[in-house]
Amino acid sequence: MFSSFKRLLIGRPLKSAALGEQKLNIFKALAILSSDALSSVAYGTEQILLVLATISVIAYWYSVPIAVGVLFLLAALILSYRQIIYSYPQGGGAYLVSKENIGEKAGLIAGGSLLVDYILTVAVSVSAGTAAITSAIPSLHQHTVSIAVILVILITILNLRGLTESATILAYPVYLFVLALFVLIGVGIFKIVTGNVSAAVQHAPIGTPVQGITLFLLLRAFASGCSALTGVEAISNAIPNFKDPAPKNAARTLVLMGTLLALLFTGITFLAYYYGISPKHDETVVSQIARETFGRNYLYFFVQGTTALILVLAANTGYSAFPLLAFSLAKDKYMPRMFTIRGDRLGYSNGIVSLGIASIVLIIVSQGKTEHLIPLYAVGVFIPFTLSQTGMIIKWVREKPAGWIAKLSANLIGALITLTVLIIFFVTKFSQVWFVVIFLPILVIAFRRINAHYEAVGEQLRIHPDKPAIQIEGNVIIVPVAGITKVVENSINYAKSITDQIFAVYVSFDREDEKHFEEKWEKWQPDVRLVTLQSHYRSVLQPLSKFIDTIEHKASENNYKVTVLIPQFITKKSWHNILHNQSSILIRTYLLYKKKVIVATLPYHFKK
Amino acid sequence: MFSSFKRLLIGRPLKSAALGEQKLNIFKALAILSSDALSSVAYGTEQILLVLATISVIAYWYSVPIAVGVLFLLAALILSYRQIIYSYPQGGGAYLVSKENIGEKAGLIAGGSLLVDYILTVAVSVSAGTAAITSAIPSLHQHTVSIAVILVILITILNLRGLTESATILAYPVYLFVLALFVLIGVGIFKIVTGNVSAAVQHAPIGTPVQGITLFLLLRAFASGCSALTGVEAISNAIPNFKDPAPKNAARTLVLMGTLLALLFTGITFLAYYYGISPKHDETVVSQIARETFGRNYLYFFVQGTTALILVLAANTGYSAFPLLAFSLAKDKYMPRMFTIRGDRLGYSNGIVSLGIASIVLIIVSQGKTEHLIPLYAVGVFIPFTLSQTGMIIKWVREKPAGWIAKLSANLIGALITLTVLIIFFVTKFSQVWFVVIFLPILVIAFRRINAHYEAVGEQLRIHPDKPAIQIEGNVIIVPVAGITKVVENSINYAKSITDQIFAVYVSFDREDEKHFEEKWEKWQPDVRLVTLQSHYRSVLQPLSKFIDTIEHKASENNYKVTVLIPQFITKKSWHNILHNQSSILIRTYLLYKKKVIVATLPYHFKK
Repeated sequence: MFSSFKRLLIGRPLKSAALGEQKLNIFKALAILSSDALSSVAYGTEQILLVLATISVIAYWYSVPIAVGVLFLLAALILSYRQIIYSYPQGGGAYLVSKENIGEKAGLIAGGSLLVDYILTVAVSVSAGTAAITSAIPSLHQHTVSIAVILVILITILNLRGLTESATILAYPVYLFVLALFVLIGVGIFKIVTGNVSAAVQHAPIGTPVQGITLFLLLRAFASGCSALTGVEAISNAIPNFKDPAPKNAARTLVLMGTLLALLFTGITFLAYYYGISPKHDETVVSQIARETFGRNYLYFFVQGTTALILVLAANTGYSAFPLLAFSLAKDKYMPRMFTIRGDRLGYSNGIVSLGIASIVLIIVSQGKTEHLIPLYAVGVFIPFTLSQTGMIIKWVREKPAGWIAKLSANLIGALITLTVLIIFFVTKFSQVWFVVIFLPILVIAFRRINAHYEAVGEQLRIHPDKPAIQIEGNVIIVPVAGITKVVENSINYAKSITDQIFAVYVSFDREDEKHFEEKWEKWQPDVRLVTLQSHYRSVLQPLSKFIDTIEHKASENNYKVTVLIPQFITKKSWHNILHNQSSILIRTYLLYKKKVIVATLPYHFKK
Repeated sequence: MFSSFKRLLIGRPLKSAALGEQKLNIFKALAILSSDALSSVAYGTEQILLVLATISVIAYWYSVPIAVGVLFLLAALILSYRQIIYSYPQGGGAYLVSKENIGEKAGLIAGGSLLVDYILTVAVSVSAGTAAITSAIPSLHQHTVSIAVILVILITILNLRGLTESATILAYPVYLFVLALFVLIGVGIFKIVTGNVSAAVQHAPIGTPVQGITLFLLLRAFASGCSALTGVEAISNAIPNFKDPAPKNAARTLVLMGTLLALLFTGITFLAYYYGISPKHDETVVSQIARETFGRNYLYFFVQGTTALILVLAANTGYSAFPLLAFSLAKDKYMPRMFTIRGDRLGYSNGIVSLGIASIVLIIVSQGKTEHLIPLYAVGVFIPFTLSQTGMIIKWVREKPAGWIAKLSANLIGALITLTVLIIFFVTKFSQVWFVVIFLPILVIAFRRINAHYEAVGEQLRIHPDKPAIQIEGNVIIVPVAGITKVVENSINYAKSITDQIFAVYVSFDREDEKHFEEKWEKWQPDVRLVTLQSHYRSVLQPLSKFIDTIEHKASENNYKVTVLIPQFITKKSWHNILHNQSSILIRTYLLYKKKVIVATLPYHFKK
């Protein structure tokens, strides 16, 4: 039942050998891995304007120089990450780079913040996408949370079905979004150039003096604008997913993505400035630009629709990156081993499902509102940015390869810029990001405790050839019996085939019953020792447990092993289970966890 | 953790030998077993008036002759049940009497309807009690359901603690209620006799002609009044709980209860008639009488308080009767065996807990409103009434003991009256009781299917001395291995101590790994056969299952038994469990249910 439903939902299992076929070419990789970065355009400009709006509309012109600053940062990041891709063709990413070059703790901080970040990617993107839908169709507004949750579930299922299939589905919306924004920017600029813009639009010329503007505020606006850069690191984590030559293809994809992001971000920010657009509570900046440019016609809905789609699908970046990073952490024994297992369709199902659940929780907790999640999201991205650039600096200094000065400079600039941004974040938005300061150390401690456990287990399981295990001299079998039945006959027969050290144990609740049973047993199995135990409190487990302790103690002195043989009824129909006291399951579990005995279960299959 | 919480809640376990001490004397038995019957006074009169009110206030005088009719019925029931008590000192009750004398189906119908009835007793009594509280303290009205549910939980815990302890707690409120109503009736009659009643009260003299009155309506009112008789049968079910001489004590208790019930019901009905009281939506009839008699002073609150208490505690009748009846049905293999097991405090805990859960469900479904439950409740009581009287008639006719004509007459009258009431119920209130017609047959079918299963199991487990089980010639042990570790070493050692027919099975996901492992194994355990299985779909279970089938087939041909030895990690701390793929549990469960192999679990206790 469950398995056929699972089959329907995620498809038939794939052979391990099919793994090669799932690799990505540049076209698909760009769609899967850059939707997060590109979709940031939908809220990046708006984040800048939201801060400037606290002063006055005249301050909006600052968005243009701030955007230029963000573009410089973007260029620095792209350059730095190209170097990482070539240096770590097996999939670098902040976790690996920081761990190898700085140390375990730095790696875990980077890894932990990225894991949290991917969850935030899903939650923020899906929430923002839902908001784009509901702002175009206001009647859906009351269902925001439900819509977002359903979208996450759909994306999760798509990812469980496997990477390539999702990619094919997801490639179109990403390219349609790029097309839509290019049309929007193109038509907008054409209208401006031809002087064909509505009289309502107005903007202060660049350089107009603004009263009350402070450096703090401008830095805050810059930091906000940096949210447009979330998602840039995704490609460097996913190099092994690329078709060969993987590093080259990955680097090309990265540059392509950076170029597209720069063009779209510049265009949208410029149009927003030229049209004099203010951020509104119930309409996004992109929506306002599109409405101003096209009016509410089909082109407007095309822009809104593709924006919503790419935002929702940006969540997919998280689904590509999270399971891979979780796999790396699990392989290094910092996370539970289950994250290393490929599911039926070759994706790391446990990672995919965990991500889905965590982001649904975040969406419900935040009630589908992104404003409080985005700063957390951005700061979470800049921590691993800074750490991986720092790691690269250390690497260059240590290895000093040909042309290392140039490489060092690129990463040094990257590190300085991202660190500066990070400091700006903490200084200007502490009230929104303090959570990171508490949560990250907890996560790192958890990683290290898990690691310590696995190490301890490994040590305990290791075989020392000079210390061979003690030979077992013989076996004692304890058979709890509840009556004289075929099940007991089977159990005794099985026990006899292994050893002649057999104890049948009968727990009785009163003297009379005890005597009666002893007599019956003597007639039936005179050659098998019967031990009867009195239970004053009607518990079978307590006297049995005591008896087993006694036997186990004696047996271990003689290097004998004790096996407790427990029959279990296997009913024909599942409802029959409630008709039998499932005490055997209880006893088995108790003995297994509390005693040092082998517990053998002898199934008795009912025929009707 | 759980066990110490359980200890705190229900007390330390009692020895089985303590059973004798828990028996009831008349004083306590009356409190436990008659609270249901006596508390019916709180709504019996009201049910009659509710029907008469559909005509006019002038019709209220009919409540007096109807009450007289109900009293006759009560007398007939008491006489009949005295005979049942003496004939079935081991605890008769409708189930046993009907089954022995009429047949299996009649017994099951009686038993089934009583079971449902006890659940309704709890739900109706607690709901009515809650309503009494909330009508005295209207601000609690919005919490009706929560209050009722909490009360059920409290009563359930009291019963899990044991019968005598509950009895001591419960005896006082019952006697206080009787005292309160005697004071109310006494003062009321004194005031009437001295002519000291408020001018507002008015009533039509008995015999006043009433327009529109029909026989149908009077019968309906009579049937409603019969709800005052619910609970009369409880004593005959509980005879084994009485102190010796049990039947005599039980019969005395029954007569005492009948007398008290008759006095209270007559008094309340008379006062209601004399005061001309109409049933109100927000105030009970008893509350109106008390207010009329005393005003809203402490005596009024005393009556209301004890009424509420006895109604809530009437639920306890269900807790005495339900587990005992479930025990009888389970002993006769009509209900799951778990209902025959005494808990730590010697009560039949499973029955107690089931009753609690079922009545909480009923309370939540009915939203704590009793009006729709009471007719169902009454009809459920009159089915076993009729069946047990009929059973007694058959018994007398069959056995013809000394004076059997007199005994027969008593039961014949009882049977005819209760059958008539039952018919009146179905004719006048079908829309409220049709559910019984559907549910009872389903319940009877379920009982019989359970019985059939137990009989079939008994047959399969029975030992036929002429057909001894096939001797086991030897053992094959299959040890799934995942690596070369101490756990595997232990497993192999254990297997070697039992047989030399050992297969170590390794499931590999790729060729290279397979070869590598085979080489390592050859060096480590050259004398133990290693079988490597390829899994293309990364499932361990599938190839393992296939392999076991092959081995099992061969082994059974030679009368060999196959044992699969599965190691299980037992972690030191419970959170460590998520760090280990608990595939061993999955594999064990699968093999146990699907294969005919013995599954032996070898625990490996981690030291840290």
